[in-house]
Amino acid sequence: MRKLNIAIIGLGNIGSYLFKYLKDNKKILTEKNNCVPIVKYVSAKNKNRKRKITFKQNQWLNNYLDVTKLNDVDLIVELIGGAEGPAKKLVFSALKNKKSVVTANKALIAKYGDQLSKIAEKNKVNLEFEAAVCGGVPIIRSLKEGLIANKILKIYGIFNGTSNYILSSMDRDNKVFNDVLSKAQKLGYAESNPTADLNGDDVSSKLKILSSLCFNSFLNNNIYVEGIKNIDKTDIDNANKLGYKIKLLGFAEYLNNKFYQRVHPTLIKKDSYVASIDGVLNAVIIDGRPVGKSIIQGEGAGAAATTSALISDISSILRGNIKFPFSLSSKERKKIKFANIDDRFFSAYLRFEVSDVPGVLSNITNIFSKNKVSIKRLVQNPNKNKKTSSIIIITHRSRNNFLNKILKEVARKKYIKRKPKLIRIDDN
Amino acid sequence: MRKLNIAIIGLGNIGSYLFKYLKDNKKILTEKNNCVPIVKYVSAKNKNRKRKITFKQNQWLNNYLDVTKLNDVDLIVELIGGAEGPAKKLVFSALKNKKSVVTANKALIAKYGDQLSKIAEKNKVNLEFEAAVCGGVPIIRSLKEGLIANKILKIYGIFNGTSNYILSSMDRDNKVFNDVLSKAQKLGYAESNPTADLNGDDVSSKLKILSSLCFNSFLNNNIYVEGIKNIDKTDIDNANKLGYKIKLLGFAEYLNNKFYQRVHPTLIKKDSYVASIDGVLNAVIIDGRPVGKSIIQGEGAGAAATTSALISDISSILRGNIKFPFSLSSKERKKIKFANIDDRFFSAYLRFEVSDVPGVLSNITNIFSKNKVSIKRLVQNPNKNKKTSSIIIITHRSRNNFLNKILKEVARKKYIKRKPKLIRIDDN
Repeated sequence: MRKLNIAIIGLGNIGSYLFKYLKDNKKILTEKNNCVPIVKYVSAKNKNRKRKITFKQNQWLNNYLDVTKLNDVDLIVELIGGAEGPAKKLVFSALKNKKSVVTANKALIAKYGDQLSKIAEKNKVNLEFEAAVCGGVPIIRSLKEGLIANKILKIYGIFNGTSNYILSSMDRDNKVFNDVLSKAQKLGYAESNPTADLNGDDVSSKLKILSSLCFNSFLNNNIYVEGIKNIDKTDIDNANKLGYKIKLLGFAEYLNNKFYQRVHPTLIKKDSYVASIDGVLNAVIIDGRPVGKSIIQGEGAGAAATTSALISDISSILRGNIKFPFSLSSKERKKIKFANIDDRFFSAYLRFEVSDVPGVLSNITNIFSKNKVSIKRLVQNPNKNKKTSSIIIITHRSRNNFLNKILKEVARKKYIKRKPKLIRIDDN
Repeated sequence: MRKLNIAIIGLGNIGSYLFKYLKDNKKILTEKNNCVPIVKYVSAKNKNRKRKITFKQNQWLNNYLDVTKLNDVDLIVELIGGAEGPAKKLVFSALKNKKSVVTANKALIAKYGDQLSKIAEKNKVNLEFEAAVCGGVPIIRSLKEGLIANKILKIYGIFNGTSNYILSSMDRDNKVFNDVLSKAQKLGYAESNPTADLNGDDVSSKLKILSSLCFNSFLNNNIYVEGIKNIDKTDIDNANKLGYKIKLLGFAEYLNNKFYQRVHPTLIKKDSYVASIDGVLNAVIIDGRPVGKSIIQGEGAGAAATTSALISDISSILRGNIKFPFSLSSKERKKIKFANIDDRFFSAYLRFEVSDVPGVLSNITNIFSKNKVSIKRLVQNPNKNKKTSSIIIITHRSRNNFLNKILKEVARKKYIKRKPKLIRIDDN
């Protein structure tokens, strides 16, 4: 029987869970893949940190980088995290030394995936990263295998459980942003430093990887990214009244002969599938030919779901199913030009908090008309205590840069009491 | 570059679509899989039938069975259909002659899959059948690869687009069964002989295959199957009033140390995910450890979606990713005893059409009480014109055989005007 020697580098929650899983499920994995997975080495920053697992003395490596030189290592599982530093060093060195790599590191793959896959292909080893995108949702395996036949026109969805939890809690439990964030941190749904989750960077990394797989292109940094930090309870309530939910969505799409990548809070119809996804779940919608529209949904984070993804990659390597990391070889991947969203058309929700003085409404609508943006719906709510009004406008489909111009122009007016808001509406 | 010689046997809608797809997408498939797919031969019942494709004279085989003996054939795609006759002959003969097989034939796999996989394993060739279950939904690939890490506790969902179209049309368009069926046939959503779709057999075949993959077991015929022929508009309206939709669902589950396979119309809460799936879509919900709950949804039928599934199997074979047809080798698959649903507990909806005479209600409730089935909700609607009443009862969770006993006992009563109904309620 064939054997595969594995090293796990990084023994946090995920690394420890994976270590235990591989120990407990060695027999069934061997049977399914016709190859024995052997955890030969482990390494982490701190050997003596309290963990729920026990490894043998001779499994431990003091210097994690040694693993890339050892003859009795075939596959390195990188669970350090971060696009730079030790993770980067480890993965580059591993592939250069002809070791296969499985990683959950979305930041690393989104930044260096093209370089890394070239080295992997040259050295005929695997580089797999199912766990880097949407936790336990087998989206990468599906794009590379189950849906391999398809020309993908659009992929979008909820790719960040933390921000989705926050938005759905604000909606459901009627709480404000900071309260919900504190609760999410207590429950372990948000990290102590949740910046990348809230500012859209986490979704951006995942979307770049998916976009590249869908369009057979190299990774591309031309992506519009906006997080959820400016969404407040009032916007959520307004959206509700208008028949929408607000979700942080990532989109990669081929539309009117242009490719777009974008991440932003989005108003979507309440009765749509995506609107129904609450809490920390992830959901991916894929529109492809010939298959049509498909949906894959599941747990987007956590040690258990991530281990499910890591094991799918490890199993693929156990079976000797050598594939290109990005589905196509680097020689065949395309250099696609992604368009700026400025020229894309959106319907949008805009909110202006204004002084309650005469002429404001006429001034605002005048600015809309000057910028060729036509108004579909307008609601003005007075806030008597503060002598201010809230003006909510839903526009018809309009050029993104015209919408932004309106936003900037109105923002400068004296009657504006706080920064105006623009949230795009999904036009599916 | 490696090459794989393919023969397509059966050139109906799906076979023709696949033929054209392979021609149009040869380059990208070669690049992705590092192997050239070559359609060497085709065969079908009638050579001269009108088709949208053109094949060369030397591609045509007069006797489809010759394909199993030709040295320049590596892979046979069987698209004849049916568990017996030519399809059975072809697939057995192909595997015995060391040809790999890809098939969309659920009836054949559900009936002979165990025997066929033994031959395939012995001869080290592939037998793949993604297209046999839920069309374009990559559920088999996901169970075998993307979710390979998981111990599956339950798989269920909507596996038949025809019956789902009929039920959702009766609900939405307020039409009766036969009108909807005629319309479905006109639109091509139902076959001219829709028996297997309506009586649950189609779902049963798919469920047996999925169940076997989920529980690492041989195919098993201990399955409860009930179709939608007895569901009428009144039941759908009643369900609506009570907050439910009626769907034809298939379930394979591990519950209280027992395995069950069952297919039957089911009342499910209106706000559940499954209730929202209308028309010809298919949806599969998988509950596994460690991944948690996952959902895969997509087009369940049609030449385009089915081709997507066939190509995923063909690509897997192009890459040389030889696997066991049922994930595990026949030596490792288990002989699981599936339990009869008699002992399983269900909440249920029962409907009795009775004469409007005194004592009926007391007699019925008495029968319930005698059989230890407690009533959660009871509605009696008089039908004044006919001097009859409709009694609708929702029960608490009760043993299936007790529910059936009540049904039989009440059915014999003189006051019963038509066959009583029992529809199980999903208890998720």
